[in-house]
Amino acid sequence: MAPLKNKTVSFVGLGLMGGALAMGLRKQEPDKICAFDINEEVLEEALTTGVIDCGVSTPEGIREILGISDLVVLCLYPRAALAFMEDYMADFKEKAVITDITGVKTLLVEGLADKLRPDLDMIYGHPMAGSEKEGFGKADDGIFKDRNYILVPQPQNRPENLTWIKEIVKGLGFNNIVETTAKIHDQKIAFTSQLCHVIAGALVDSEEDLHITDYEGGSFGDLTRIAMINAPMWSELFICNKEALVEQIEKFEDSMAQMKAKIIAEDRKGLEEMLENIRHKRIVMEVDRQNKLNRESKS
Amino acid sequence: MAPLKNKTVSFVGLGLMGGALAMGLRKQEPDKICAFDINEEVLEEALTTGVIDCGVSTPEGIREILGISDLVVLCLYPRAALAFMEDYMADFKEKAVITDITGVKTLLVEGLADKLRPDLDMIYGHPMAGSEKEGFGKADDGIFKDRNYILVPQPQNRPENLTWIKEIVKGLGFNNIVETTAKIHDQKIAFTSQLCHVIAGALVDSEEDLHITDYEGGSFGDLTRIAMINAPMWSELFICNKEALVEQIEKFEDSMAQMKAKIIAEDRKGLEEMLENIRHKRIVMEVDRQNKLNRESKS
Repeated sequence: MAPLKNKTVSFVGLGLMGGALAMGLRKQEPDKICAFDINEEVLEEALTTGVIDCGVSTPEGIREILGISDLVVLCLYPRAALAFMEDYMADFKEKAVITDITGVKTLLVEGLADKLRPDLDMIYGHPMAGSEKEGFGKADDGIFKDRNYILVPQPQNRPENLTWIKEIVKGLGFNNIVETTAKIHDQKIAFTSQLCHVIAGALVDSEEDLHITDYEGGSFGDLTRIAMINAPMWSELFICNKEALVEQIEKFEDSMAQMKAKIIAEDRKGLEEMLENIRHKRIVMEVDRQNKLNRESKS
Repeated sequence: MAPLKNKTVSFVGLGLMGGALAMGLRKQEPDKICAFDINEEVLEEALTTGVIDCGVSTPEGIREILGISDLVVLCLYPRAALAFMEDYMADFKEKAVITDITGVKTLLVEGLADKLRPDLDMIYGHPMAGSEKEGFGKADDGIFKDRNYILVPQPQNRPENLTWIKEIVKGLGFNNIVETTAKIHDQKIAFTSQLCHVIAGALVDSEEDLHITDYEGGSFGDLTRIAMINAPMWSELFICNKEALVEQIEKFEDSMAQMKAKIIAEDRKGLEEMLENIRHKRIVMEVDRQNKLNRESKS
């Protein structure tokens, strides 16, 4: 499978995710991979290691690579992605397909709704993989194996381009492609991703003892690994998805308050029932995931 | 190193932890390993697989194995451990060493303070390892490698017995033995273990979508694996350590409320600062742990 044969792909932003995607796409044998990044050392490293074929760091360079690219992958923070599209709208190759990986979708979908050049096809996507690490130096396309990829198709997307993007995504190792709306995406992600990062952060914040790992048996490590957070990016994601995130935080706070009340009341029976229900629900969620993995690996 | 040579060891309770400890202790070549469990199938399996040499399931059986045991390992829930000690105090071999693995310490230490037979040496311990799995069938002594082991020594403990227990613990694979008081143990564990389980549970409780894993990228899985909880055991642990746990829950709630307020206010600068501090603190905590691992592996 080489869906990128004879195609030129450009990455806008070559950080942890852009870098990992470029590494993965290389295996689909594109004609050429170009990249824009403001960090010239990153471009140098990506050229040396053969991840990209050409690197640019200036507006002129951007225009040059956009003009020849069949596929452009935006790997920027949400607001920068929107600004980039507005600034360089005229510079894309005719009928180019553009995709993004931003962690919130409403901002971008609504922001571009009546601004997109009619010949361009913007296919919004979100690879559900990552790492607490940062930057091109830590990029590794192994993180995509067996992960979810969310697509947010728009009525104007050309079916053949959607199919093409899905083929590329599967080639990267993702095994479950989910299609949904921007609004649902942002609600779900507020829970699975942003709320989890808020919790991990609050947990670390609430402990003063820097030697606390002397007393840990694994749980604290598992719950707080993602607290080693890219602060500017997550601040932007949290604020861009404020409404959905605050709603999820408050649901979580309610569940926690219920459990706390049962502990304070020493309501052992109530607590056991609640924990038993939670255990059951979590197992059902796990089984749902495993079933999808098995179904995909057979198909 | 065979600190158990010519010794008889008995386990009271042969679940996930008792089973794993018995497997590990076998490698230290004791003369004999006995076990009490109410589940006869478990005893049968442990006998067949060679993890134990004799199994008993009745009070008479308990008295028999206690009478010949140099070391007794209590692997029961906290209240059951206390009740067991009270019920069988007269039946231990003279000068036996007893240890436990219960997740809260004040209850047991205070409960036994003026009840322990003077010739017995009770050395309170807590192996900081476990699994979301349950029962002897899932037991595996590999879970102890490079983990913490907390000891709560008492003034009356005999130094040679403390040294002996430490030697046995190191032989099991634990690489960091921490000594502290019952009160500090319970405070620290309220944070590293119980609070983490409350959070994981509340997170699962707060989500209705049973197909939510379609939208997850790893964080939700990492944060909620421990929500597949042994409900009776954790209910007891939460309630037995109520004061320390509620204090930790409230500290966590405060940190979360601060973060939520910054998100609502769209205070990007404040949020970035908070997340940057959290990131730094978590890295320091990680480095502290790694330094200990390195120090131990060199010694």
